[in-house]
Amino acid sequence: MDESKSEALNYLPNIHCPADVKQLPQEALPELAKEIRQTLIDTVSKTGGHLASNLGVVELTIALHKTFNSPYDKIVWDVGHQAYVHKLLTGRYHEFSTLRTENGISGFPRPCESEHDVFAGGHSSTALSAALGIAQANQIKGNKNYTIAVIGDGAFTGGMVYEAMNNVANSSSRLIVILNNNEMSISRNVGKLAEYLAVIKSRPQYFRLKATTDKVLKKIPIIGRPLASRIVRIKTFFKNQIYSSTIFEHFGFRYMGPIDGHNIPVLCDALQSAKESNYPIFLHLRTIKGKGYEHAEKDPCGFHGISRFDINSGEPITSGPNFSKEFGDYLVEAAAKDRRICAITAAMTSGTGLSAFAEHFPERFFDVGIAEQHAVTFSCGLAKAGMLPVFAVYSAFLQRAYDQIVHDGTLQEQKIILAVDRAGFVGDDGEMHHGLLDVPFLNTIPGVTVYSPSTYAEMRNAFYKSLYHQKGVVAVRYYRGKELPLPGDFSPSFRAFDLYGSEDAHVFLVTYGRLFSYACEAQKRLAEEGISCAVLKLNRIKPISQKAIDAVQTAEQIFFFEEGEQLGGAGEHFLSLLNSHGWQGGYTLTAVPDSYAAHASVERLLERFSLDAEGMHRVVREKMQIKQKKTFKGILYD
Amino acid sequence: MDESKSEALNYLPNIHCPADVKQLPQEALPELAKEIRQTLIDTVSKTGGHLASNLGVVELTIALHKTFNSPYDKIVWDVGHQAYVHKLLTGRYHEFSTLRTENGISGFPRPCESEHDVFAGGHSSTALSAALGIAQANQIKGNKNYTIAVIGDGAFTGGMVYEAMNNVANSSSRLIVILNNNEMSISRNVGKLAEYLAVIKSRPQYFRLKATTDKVLKKIPIIGRPLASRIVRIKTFFKNQIYSSTIFEHFGFRYMGPIDGHNIPVLCDALQSAKESNYPIFLHLRTIKGKGYEHAEKDPCGFHGISRFDINSGEPITSGPNFSKEFGDYLVEAAAKDRRICAITAAMTSGTGLSAFAEHFPERFFDVGIAEQHAVTFSCGLAKAGMLPVFAVYSAFLQRAYDQIVHDGTLQEQKIILAVDRAGFVGDDGEMHHGLLDVPFLNTIPGVTVYSPSTYAEMRNAFYKSLYHQKGVVAVRYYRGKELPLPGDFSPSFRAFDLYGSEDAHVFLVTYGRLFSYACEAQKRLAEEGISCAVLKLNRIKPISQKAIDAVQTAEQIFFFEEGEQLGGAGEHFLSLLNSHGWQGGYTLTAVPDSYAAHASVERLLERFSLDAEGMHRVVREKMQIKQKKTFKGILYD
Repeated sequence: MDESKSEALNYLPNIHCPADVKQLPQEALPELAKEIRQTLIDTVSKTGGHLASNLGVVELTIALHKTFNSPYDKIVWDVGHQAYVHKLLTGRYHEFSTLRTENGISGFPRPCESEHDVFAGGHSSTALSAALGIAQANQIKGNKNYTIAVIGDGAFTGGMVYEAMNNVANSSSRLIVILNNNEMSISRNVGKLAEYLAVIKSRPQYFRLKATTDKVLKKIPIIGRPLASRIVRIKTFFKNQIYSSTIFEHFGFRYMGPIDGHNIPVLCDALQSAKESNYPIFLHLRTIKGKGYEHAEKDPCGFHGISRFDINSGEPITSGPNFSKEFGDYLVEAAAKDRRICAITAAMTSGTGLSAFAEHFPERFFDVGIAEQHAVTFSCGLAKAGMLPVFAVYSAFLQRAYDQIVHDGTLQEQKIILAVDRAGFVGDDGEMHHGLLDVPFLNTIPGVTVYSPSTYAEMRNAFYKSLYHQKGVVAVRYYRGKELPLPGDFSPSFRAFDLYGSEDAHVFLVTYGRLFSYACEAQKRLAEEGISCAVLKLNRIKPISQKAIDAVQTAEQIFFFEEGEQLGGAGEHFLSLLNSHGWQGGYTLTAVPDSYAAHASVERLLERFSLDAEGMHRVVREKMQIKQKKTFKGILYD
Repeated sequence: MDESKSEALNYLPNIHCPADVKQLPQEALPELAKEIRQTLIDTVSKTGGHLASNLGVVELTIALHKTFNSPYDKIVWDVGHQAYVHKLLTGRYHEFSTLRTENGISGFPRPCESEHDVFAGGHSSTALSAALGIAQANQIKGNKNYTIAVIGDGAFTGGMVYEAMNNVANSSSRLIVILNNNEMSISRNVGKLAEYLAVIKSRPQYFRLKATTDKVLKKIPIIGRPLASRIVRIKTFFKNQIYSSTIFEHFGFRYMGPIDGHNIPVLCDALQSAKESNYPIFLHLRTIKGKGYEHAEKDPCGFHGISRFDINSGEPITSGPNFSKEFGDYLVEAAAKDRRICAITAAMTSGTGLSAFAEHFPERFFDVGIAEQHAVTFSCGLAKAGMLPVFAVYSAFLQRAYDQIVHDGTLQEQKIILAVDRAGFVGDDGEMHHGLLDVPFLNTIPGVTVYSPSTYAEMRNAFYKSLYHQKGVVAVRYYRGKELPLPGDFSPSFRAFDLYGSEDAHVFLVTYGRLFSYACEAQKRLAEEGISCAVLKLNRIKPISQKAIDAVQTAEQIFFFEEGEQLGGAGEHFLSLLNSHGWQGGYTLTAVPDSYAAHASVERLLERFSLDAEGMHRVVREKMQIKQKKTFKGILYD
């Protein structure tokens, strides 16, 4: 934290734990809120991160720590990117400038970072399930502490939260759900539930009505038979209707709200009432995403997850072409020529590059909310009726739809296309957002085809093939950010694989995706040192072409480099294919060995796992120098 | 179909397509319903299958084919085991006796079997997503046909259906959802929604009220100011409440019901009204699961999915111990000693062997509905608060929770135990129910431990280790049915692997789970023929023990047999480990090669993939005879 900034703050630097918040007088809290906002904006402008959602929960987080007793009472943050304020109030102010940097504060709750981070969360709609588990365990053990789940309205487009709501027993009286309703998920919130919440919010009379219902009903006179008895029944019925008239009450909660989520005294009162109630409580807040920073209030989408930006103008410091944008441009071109093409997103219109598509082809564009499972099966329905659906989704979130790809996709030989964005390391967002599992898990699913292009041109080609020359479920996976430079003398074949270097080489580097750029660099350095090798680049990684296996039959040493989990990945399968064709030689597989990777820059992560040019060079050198020794880089089991 | 039976039937044998149903007079339909029930009971008593759910939808299915025009109008059956009647009315009566037998009629809708089977379904809660896709595509194309999703109330405990409901746009006017409310999912339905539906069903006055609301409200006199204006507002509010008072209306449907699902004229009227409406319709039926067969009405759980049974007594023909029951017994014993142990099921109390646990420890037993995602994250919540949760689930359904195992389980190093039942081939239920993916997909997830016992004793041991000697997410996977006999001279080590035969063998068969029994048989035959080999049995298949790799270092030929998908499975990883330790020899992997396997008996399926003793023997013989030639049994890519 910049010292000059710290000096300007009166309260925040002295908050070392939630007890310090409790000791502040109510009058000081608005000033504390201001200091928190200033810190959020300063820090995120330098580190990038999730700004708008955190600006929206400043008052709520203060009120929570004022009212409850963390870590004994457990606060579970859904899609934890709204937990920055919580971090600032639980002893992490002085490290906060390290946000999202290697070995620094994570952008999400992390139990290993603080006892106040109860449950990690980076994917949507999980908090209520976790909170319910904690609350039930407390009940079994006779523990009287509270469990609080804070959930945005966007998360209510994900099915998991309904699965949990269906299990809120009346007995979990120390469970409080807070709906942070800012009318956004990541893009603007979609679907019927959003409309419904808007309706509730627009009825300020709702609670006054509740209060006067009995009184008013009593004044309705009984006007003769036979209507009389019916009216009595109707009175009862009306009362039941009014007292159980939100969806949440149907699920067994007591509903409170909507209340102003930026008014600390009101929040504290409401939370106190919730505490004293003997029922599971559903507290509905109205908040403003981006509250207190003009640029973020105006463009909460843009300030959801943001790179470094200029505080005064609100403009991001970097921009330019990237895979997402190139994908979006391609799909607009393709959809202009082919009216069957539909685009589907799970609340990531802008992130996946689909804004232009949404504008040009609204009738063929479907933002289904944070609902990856539905997105896949819905796409299968579109396909069944003759459309060409393309579901654009981040690799890490596609994990949600594993069963749907199996059961509704491949088992039925549906022609759907998965545009798998953020494949590979994503960097600062860390372990819950890296796309290291899509290759292994798509590999396990019979009949899926997977392309992993290295460049924009190859990506376009892969989508073209997927649309017009492939059957079944096809995935095209690509990276966060820009394409990497390739050697001037490389010309892509746009076929299942490319060979760069001599066909007769005895040493091959095999890889796919953006690592090809590093492999070429490593090859150059090795050549300068007298080790001649060729690079085999897989463009289609499932199924792997028989000809690609043939192409390396002359190899004595093969080095496979993979930006993904090793177990079940392309590298293990490549070895299996080589083996089944009788090849025997030295095979060295370098990938991420059965572990997760915390947040750090992509460059640092590639370095850490020997997947950059330097690392590849080193792996080959070591092996070539001590050929007879074991040089496997993966985990050794016991 | 037994001829003597067919002769007794007047109508059903002459139904070759839905048009034949349309031509029958209304008077004939009850008789048709009777014939269908007779056929269902006769057939399922011989083949096994899903009886109770089909008995419950006889009248509905007749009314659907009377009112709609399949295959132009699309009927999508959720969890398709309720589609037998549909099969009987769409030209499959004469093959119906082949139900669930190899090359016979599938127990689930199968698009490759009939154009009337629009969408396959064997996992719950997918139908509305698929139907919505079809309806939206029709709308884009200007196609006026109807799309009908038939969904049981159990499926409403699964989150996916809410994801889809949230996307029911007002414009999809030719979409009809039929809720088949029999108050069961597979076990008795659980959770708040079930209670809610019971409440709706218990209000017959509901619709009479709707009709008279306006009239009644008009009769409320205005009794002086200042109450007058408030009453006007209240009148409007009451009206809004009454007209939008089911959850389904909150989501944008027009709600109709509840109506009697066994009254064909009422059903036809309701479906006709739904057709003529200009809104997406939600039609709520009351049905009786097992209707028309006394034993099934009394015990709809028992007759949900059933083996062959005696028609008169309703008693199953086979029974006895099996893995599920042994698991259930073990967990009861363990939970009696350890109060932290909880059992979680996703609507499979009886199927997973948990009935006794539910009875003995109700406060630690959680049936969460058909909600595998929630089940995993809820278990993580329990674990976080100090309990020892064991989630018992069929392998194929665990696919739903892939992301939760990653994100809420392993990433947070939660100690939860997955009791993975129905691992491997399940037989008659076919491709959507085989457990062939759990090993590959659990393999991809960093930090999961996987045990695959061969016997009850080993299973108990694996659970004991999982409870008390393991960290993180642990899976114990076991088979449908009974343990297989093992050689008398085999004594289990209860360690990470067992070696049966000489340590100095040059040929090793490597396998896990029930295949060990077949491998021992194959070994015996090979020994008699002069080929001496040892069998390495992996008990812990992830991580594979370093010592297991060491144990086969002397091998010249290794044959790995795996009852699971080859890609990403244990066999490919075993090769990768061998390679990384410098082993070079012949390695032959026999598994299910990147494809699904249709229904047939387990024995036939093992035979088909060379995974029985005969097949193993053949694979080894062929390889040993023509060592230099390629004998890989997997798919060859191009």
